Amino acid sequence: MGIDPRFFRVSKALSPSDIAKQFDVEEGSLPTDSVTSLSSFDGASKGDICFFEGPLKSWPEHASAATICLTPDTSEWRSVADSNVVQVDNPRAAFFDLASGWVFEETHQSQPPRIHPEASVAPSAVVENGANIGKGAKIDAFAYIGPGVQIGENAKIGSHASIRFSLVGNGVKLLAGARLGEDGFGLIPGDGKMNDLPHYGRVILHDGVTLGANCTVDRGLLGDTVIGAHTKIDNQCHIGHNTIVGQNVIMVAYAGISGSVKIDDNVRLGGRVGVADHVHIGEGAQLGAGAGLLRDVPAGETWGGFPARPLKDWQRELIWVSKQTRRRKASK
Amino acid sequence: MGIDPRFFRVSKALSPSDIAKQFDVEEGSLPTDSVTSLSSFDGASKGDICFFEGPLKSWPEHASAATICLTPDTSEWRSVADSNVVQVDNPRAAFFDLASGWVFEETHQSQPPRIHPEASVAPSAVVENGANIGKGAKIDAFAYIGPGVQIGENAKIGSHASIRFSLVGNGVKLLAGARLGEDGFGLIPGDGKMNDLPHYGRVILHDGVTLGANCTVDRGLLGDTVIGAHTKIDNQCHIGHNTIVGQNVIMVAYAGISGSVKIDDNVRLGGRVGVADHVHIGEGAQLGAGAGLLRDVPAGETWGGFPARPLKDWQRELIWVSKQTRRRKASK
Amino acid sequence: MGIDPRFFRVSKALSPSDIAKQFDVEEGSLPTDSVTSLSSFDGASKGDICFFEGPLKSWPEHASAATICLTPDTSEWRSVADSNVVQVDNPRAAFFDLASGWVFEETHQSQPPRIHPEASVAPSAVVENGANIGKGAKIDAFAYIGPGVQIGENAKIGSHASIRFSLVGNGVKLLAGARLGEDGFGLIPGDGKMNDLPHYGRVILHDGVTLGANCTVDRGLLGDTVIGAHTKIDNQCHIGHNTIVGQNVIMVAYAGISGSVKIDDNVRLGGRVGVADHVHIGEGAQLGAGAGLLRDVPAGETWGGFPARPLKDWQRELIWVSKQTRRRKASK
Repeated sequence: MGIDPRFFRVSKALSPSDIAKQFDVEEGSLPTDSVTSLSSFDGASKGDICFFEGPLKSWPEHASAATICLTPDTSEWRSVADSNVVQVDNPRAAFFDLASGWVFEETHQSQPPRIHPEASVAPSAVVENGANIGKGAKIDAFAYIGPGVQIGENAKIGSHASIRFSLVGNGVKLLAGARLGEDGFGLIPGDGKMNDLPHYGRVILHDGVTLGANCTVDRGLLGDTVIGAHTKIDNQCHIGHNTIVGQNVIMVAYAGISGSVKIDDNVRLGGRVGVADHVHIGEGAQLGAGAGLLRDVPAGETWGGFPARPLKDWQRELIWVSKQTRRRKASK
Repeated sequence: MGIDPRFFRVSKALSPSDIAKQFDVEEGSLPTDSVTSLSSFDGASKGDICFFEGPLKSWPEHASAATICLTPDTSEWRSVADSNVVQVDNPRAAFFDLASGWVFEETHQSQPPRIHPEASVAPSAVVENGANIGKGAKIDAFAYIGPGVQIGENAKIGSHASIRFSLVGNGVKLLAGARLGEDGFGLIPGDGKMNDLPHYGRVILHDGVTLGANCTVDRGLLGDTVIGAHTKIDNQCHIGHNTIVGQNVIMVAYAGISGSVKIDDNVRLGGRVGVADHVHIGEGAQLGAGAGLLRDVPAGETWGGFPARPLKDWQRELIWVSKQTRRRKASK
Repeated sequence: MGIDPRFFRVSKALSPSDIAKQFDVEEGSLPTDSVTSLSSFDGASKGDICFFEGPLKSWPEHASAATICLTPDTSEWRSVADSNVVQVDNPRAAFFDLASGWVFEETHQSQPPRIHPEASVAPSAVVENGANIGKGAKIDAFAYIGPGVQIGENAKIGSHASIRFSLVGNGVKLLAGARLGEDGFGLIPGDGKMNDLPHYGRVILHDGVTLGANCTVDRGLLGDTVIGAHTKIDNQCHIGHNTIVGQNVIMVAYAGISGSVKIDDNVRLGGRVGVADHVHIGEGAQLGAGAGLLRDVPAGETWGGFPARPLKDWQRELIWVSKQTRRRKASK
């Protein structure tokens, strides 16, 4: 999926000639279609530009449907005949370098927000152009609803909450100070320093989600950060970019989920659980308070500890160490 | 204690006939008094409705003083002759089902806030009707003071702080972005999903409390969340619903206290200490940074580790494991 | 360095006679210079008053350059002939007692903010007097820029962020709800209770720093809290007062740094790393997610665990304990 026009716009469609100039390649070797959007490799479709960083052997059989896909400029890649493949030195850097001068935030300058007559917006709240506030929704003092944001029916947005680049379902509750749709934490080295990656994705909260006070849910880098229906999240939790959380998940305070994590339905996370990037937590799994998870958890299992392991293993270790040291103390 | 009329109101007093209809019981078996408020079982007094979930044997000798107490609909409960006992399938669900259509937030529509002439309120702050700002208090930019909230003398409320359903003592300081009185994290299953429990309690901060930037203190479900005088709380801490914190307690950054915890006077909690639901920490006890507390700590003791145990036990275990593995390494 | 006149002012210069009265000492024994500012012991220069709490043997050879230095009132200190040394019962208490009635926040009443014509300030933002917003800077909705605050060119200040007592470099980004320059967590006992220490320092963010959503960076007690150029900090991190962070440091979500910590360039801190007061982390060192650091880390090393130790030691311990308990289970 390319960029959502409610949140982003490209300055112009890129013709084969534009692409040829940008990446210093022969125009004749390129597809004749224009490029009108950008996307992740997996989510790409016609009209998109994307990038791929792996070796040729991990290039999927049905390779990207993108109009242009930037790949590494190695000899193996130069042998690829697909006209959508363009080799560049550093695909990620080249991709975001193009994007930063081509994709802009859509501010909907001429399109005032649509607020349902039965919605209630506090006088001190700000609702930007292009936003849409559903029937029965309630927006509290000092809440900020960014350009193009969609708020469902009967949603309740607490004071000082901020929502950008997001689609918010019916009956969703955000408590005070929750932050939806800020930039994710993605860095790219360049010029001898770390630089922030611009984020072109969204946050999607399905119906009935509750997000506690001062929580943060970052938008996707490319593609979405998603929280499934009726998932309940306590105060001061954090959900990283491109993480996908299922339905009826429960997260207790300070649960911190890194980027590109996948959490299936009915998972329970205790307080202060931490989850590393790209981990998968199977349906109905439970993580005890304070667990620090570095690898996948099969469905239905209960894990704990730091690093997290099956709860019984951790408990056995705790008890054994405790016994050993008590024995030594007694025999002194 | 029933609901505080500064924050909540009932749509009408419930007559015995209303109660009979609501719970499908015989009016003749009910007390003749009206029900005008709701409360927890322990805090109930005349005029209140409450609920009790335990077995009959845990029903206290001097059972609830409430006008109506909902109990499970089991045979043992049906033998109870007290006219204030009403059996229902699921007391908790029945209680909150009644409450959600009967108890509403009091907005004090016709009663403008009272701001002491020697108080200072930033032009961008919002103070709702029915609120009361004491002499010498200072309310900073974008602070939100909800309906009926009481702010003591010389209190300092930082920018972007939000205060709802709360009584704030003299000389209290809230740093920027602190959240007082949001909904607690309480869930009730129903219709195949998790639903938020409405919260009818308050937050009470006694004199001289300091609450750091971006902290969160949730209001009670029924009854109060309380922080004792001169307790000092660092940034990004969290206090759950119905937790009672004593005087002169110190909590370093990220300390996270779950619900219904009791912390006695002069307790010291290091950074990132986590405390599970319903735990009791005795007077003057200390918890080292990062401790994860799952059970009660006697007064005066020092505990650490995850899960937390007496500090000396934890240290002995750490040293023993370290020695064992160094020895093995050396003998290879 | 004394107080920054952009943020603080003294009610008047203190003559030797004022000093003599304040501390009940002989005027004749004092330097003839006036005291016009206050500072830490290490940062003091002519015109400042400071305090020193250690024994005489730790008094440096080139003792404080301050005009007045408060020291303990012990016999060894009474033997010191330096005219800048004034003995008092409790130097820290005496120092802050003087300060609280003498040093005040500078509000720049008559000096409107200077906003560069090419800067963009949201209509709902508040920029206080004496503040300075650089060319190309962008201040989002409900941001609060305190009196005298300096915002560099092309800086981006997110919605609901608050900045006080701070100097913010070029190209700095603060995401929504970040808190810069709030009071640090410093306490002083007195009158049988804990009292907050007033903070007279600043926060300095060098060019290219990014600070995530709902982060908190406290200002120094005396002197500054500093974050070096191009350091990147994820959501919900916390940096305590007087901590000095180098360049190109990376901190993942919930990293929590106590006060007076020193972190050198190119350090990497995983998610939820905690660092105790006064610790030093050498250049390029790395701390794994969840590490709880209580002592110094040499440059270039990788540590993990709680308490943190060299990563290999921790991993060896984890593996050994796991093996021991699996063996026991198998042999049952």
